[in-house]
Amino acid sequence: MEFSAEQLAEVLGGKVDGNAEQTVSRLSKIEEGGEGSLSFLANPAYEKYIYETTASVVIVSEDFAPTAEISATLVRVPDAYGAFAKLLEMYNQMKGNKSGREEPSYIHDSVSMPEEYYLGAFGYIGANSKIGNGTKIHPHCHIADNVQIGENCEIFAGVKIYGDCVIGNNVTIHAGTIIGADGFGFAPNSENSYDKVAQIGNVIIEDHVEIGANSTIDRATLGSTIIRKGVKLNNLIQIAHNVEIGENTVIAAQSGVAGSTKIGKNCMIGGQVGIVGHLTIGNGVKIAAQSGIPKNLPDNAVVQGSPAFEYVDYNKSYAVYRKLPQLAKDIHQLKKNLES
Amino acid sequence: MEFSAEQLAEVLGGKVDGNAEQTVSRLSKIEEGGEGSLSFLANPAYEKYIYETTASVVIVSEDFAPTAEISATLVRVPDAYGAFAKLLEMYNQMKGNKSGREEPSYIHDSVSMPEEYYLGAFGYIGANSKIGNGTKIHPHCHIADNVQIGENCEIFAGVKIYGDCVIGNNVTIHAGTIIGADGFGFAPNSENSYDKVAQIGNVIIEDHVEIGANSTIDRATLGSTIIRKGVKLNNLIQIAHNVEIGENTVIAAQSGVAGSTKIGKNCMIGGQVGIVGHLTIGNGVKIAAQSGIPKNLPDNAVVQGSPAFEYVDYNKSYAVYRKLPQLAKDIHQLKKNLES
Amino acid sequence: MEFSAEQLAEVLGGKVDGNAEQTVSRLSKIEEGGEGSLSFLANPAYEKYIYETTASVVIVSEDFAPTAEISATLVRVPDAYGAFAKLLEMYNQMKGNKSGREEPSYIHDSVSMPEEYYLGAFGYIGANSKIGNGTKIHPHCHIADNVQIGENCEIFAGVKIYGDCVIGNNVTIHAGTIIGADGFGFAPNSENSYDKVAQIGNVIIEDHVEIGANSTIDRATLGSTIIRKGVKLNNLIQIAHNVEIGENTVIAAQSGVAGSTKIGKNCMIGGQVGIVGHLTIGNGVKIAAQSGIPKNLPDNAVVQGSPAFEYVDYNKSYAVYRKLPQLAKDIHQLKKNLES
Repeated sequence: MEFSAEQLAEVLGGKVDGNAEQTVSRLSKIEEGGEGSLSFLANPAYEKYIYETTASVVIVSEDFAPTAEISATLVRVPDAYGAFAKLLEMYNQMKGNKSGREEPSYIHDSVSMPEEYYLGAFGYIGANSKIGNGTKIHPHCHIADNVQIGENCEIFAGVKIYGDCVIGNNVTIHAGTIIGADGFGFAPNSENSYDKVAQIGNVIIEDHVEIGANSTIDRATLGSTIIRKGVKLNNLIQIAHNVEIGENTVIAAQSGVAGSTKIGKNCMIGGQVGIVGHLTIGNGVKIAAQSGIPKNLPDNAVVQGSPAFEYVDYNKSYAVYRKLPQLAKDIHQLKKNLES
Repeated sequence: MEFSAEQLAEVLGGKVDGNAEQTVSRLSKIEEGGEGSLSFLANPAYEKYIYETTASVVIVSEDFAPTAEISATLVRVPDAYGAFAKLLEMYNQMKGNKSGREEPSYIHDSVSMPEEYYLGAFGYIGANSKIGNGTKIHPHCHIADNVQIGENCEIFAGVKIYGDCVIGNNVTIHAGTIIGADGFGFAPNSENSYDKVAQIGNVIIEDHVEIGANSTIDRATLGSTIIRKGVKLNNLIQIAHNVEIGENTVIAAQSGVAGSTKIGKNCMIGGQVGIVGHLTIGNGVKIAAQSGIPKNLPDNAVVQGSPAFEYVDYNKSYAVYRKLPQLAKDIHQLKKNLES
Repeated sequence: MEFSAEQLAEVLGGKVDGNAEQTVSRLSKIEEGGEGSLSFLANPAYEKYIYETTASVVIVSEDFAPTAEISATLVRVPDAYGAFAKLLEMYNQMKGNKSGREEPSYIHDSVSMPEEYYLGAFGYIGANSKIGNGTKIHPHCHIADNVQIGENCEIFAGVKIYGDCVIGNNVTIHAGTIIGADGFGFAPNSENSYDKVAQIGNVIIEDHVEIGANSTIDRATLGSTIIRKGVKLNNLIQIAHNVEIGENTVIAAQSGVAGSTKIGKNCMIGGQVGIVGHLTIGNGVKIAAQSGIPKNLPDNAVVQGSPAFEYVDYNKSYAVYRKLPQLAKDIHQLKKNLES
């Protein structure tokens, strides 16, 4: 998508000040800019950046009076911030305007597609699966058999959803994420090796959930792994079999939750956190990054450490930890003094 | 896959008690249930759940006598647990009954496919690769050139296997896992940047291995990265170049093993563990979650911590760690008392 | 790719000593060997291995005089090391000799492909994207709209690059990596849930960068997430929105960098490290594996721990940590002694 300054001025009801044929293909912050980028100046505190920006075009207020030379082409509009917001909306609509079926793609005979949808090339929809109206499925997705996906979802490229999983409405799943792989269940046998425990449950993802890229959410052994309404999961997160994550809980990248743990509502969990299996974590819990959670946590607990305990106490202990060599010396000296 | 209570009764040699046309499409635990799910009651300890379950159909013993109203349709059979096990087996067979080649798919001219196999749509099998009899390859897999895959394997959607890798029999690899990407080898050069070290080895995965979703197992620089018979790896695990993992060792999610480390047999390694390169880890070793392993471990070691040491000692130290602020105060007081 | 000892001798200008029809299909270390592998003996220190190697063919110097029986076929050449290096180069060229367009693949009408390129089957190139000359894109890659990829890049199977991202020249990206998924940005709203913050920036990857398998690099909220020239990232790494990583910095597997952090040049960052958002990390910084970085670091800092501090101090504290139970006893004893 490439636009000239002139086209922008027309769309925004503004006037070009500079090279009307200058083109832009992306948006930038004015302090970062970059050849071919479009930026805007609305907050006077940022005015200094317009004299050094490398953005190719900058949207400014029609009454903006420069105090030095500007290399960028200007597009003068009545309301710079409003114009940028309008462009942003157009931009997102254009990105999201894909529709229809690209070929080659595979839709099983048993599937009836809704009135409005996008299925990118190399997409696969298995037997008896249902896709809701307005849902967009980008290229290379595998929707296995008996999957239900609700309305107005966006499933990015290369997502794989195993059979029997259920996805609500307005769910976003980023590229490469795997929904419904087998839980990690093996029973030791008499030959010192393992027998697989059949994993015949599914994954249920409720409305308004967003999941990042290359995460993995395992199916339940029996029953369902459940991601409740409004949950936000970042990239490279592992959610094991039979876990339940409560409404509007947010988990940062690379964290993992082991099997059958139940996490409450409105929790905030940092990156690279590990939570042991079969626990109950309350509502409104906050867990610092890289913590390890070995036991149940009550509502509104705030914890840190591996193993984690109360955040304030952890940091007091850690402050002493940093001085341990001096403490050891003090004790040694005390012993000597006492002996003498 | 949808079945009516009547169909289930017929298959299981039982009788319907309730709405014979009630359909189910998935299995559930009786305490979880859910519209359209089939559950079972075998253990009397769970009888209380049958009066409140939201499962649509429940399999019970033919002599089960309810003591209150039940909303679910019942299917009465001579042996409820046995009937459920039989259904489970049928269910897994039905899920696993895919066969033949879906189109479009890509098989290089040099490849001869076995008598029985499944290759999902958008599957790719490169030059000179060999696929064993009974192996199922789900959609979107990339099997590069000169790869060997044994018999009765199941390779889930979107797995990528680089050239020259060797997979044994009865191996399961879950969606999105990458086998044989280049090891992370770079040599600093005189210009303060890095030259790539060619990674020309391969990955060998022996029989009965199961690997979770979105894991990565790098090829050897020279020689082979080897995953021995019966090893179970969970999701999002990183196995670096030239690592060897011994028979029946189990590794939980998000752990990583750095280059050239050799891990013994029958080890149990928790989640988010990191193991440094060029180590030798003995047989029967247990490593607690989130531990970091900086040096060799003897057979049957049990360790925790980052860096890790003996599990019991680690936990003793950690118990004191939690009381460090009090200890620091005690020392301060002792010093004052001694001075006075 | 299978070669007989005779073919190898011909290519290398050597002579076969043993079974001229013995074939090999891969390279191995002489101490590892393996049926069907080709190895070499150049360093006399390794001579002992040639008597027990299971390699099928070994390249040796023409004047090599065995002192015991050898089961492998030998290929005698004037310079064993040079011959192996030559083979290595040939091997890499053969692996890399893919070119042209495999079908089915999807190239948007607006795209003009360069003179030399490889696009594997099931590859997707979206509207207005540009692919540089000599670039290889393996099967199952999704290059969305408005993406620019430079010359002589190698993009392995299943990589997904979101719209508007910019990739330089000589960049290598391994299988399953996701470039340009949305940054993790959500604003709490009055209903105790979250509104998505539009993520309209992109990712810029400069020349000579190599990225491992199944990593994720998020697009900027506004502006660009930037991976500078010569950076090497390993597998399963998370780079959040608006991060910048300086030239020739190396990051090991499973590490994560949170949003808007800026990392300097020539840093070495271990595996499973976590770096908090909005920080500035200097040039030449070294971070030990599993560390957590909570604050800015000056040039050439060397740190360890979670939270991390100076490497030497951390290890001194950790040495005392291991003896904490004894220290606690000492303090207890001191108190008793003082009281009496």
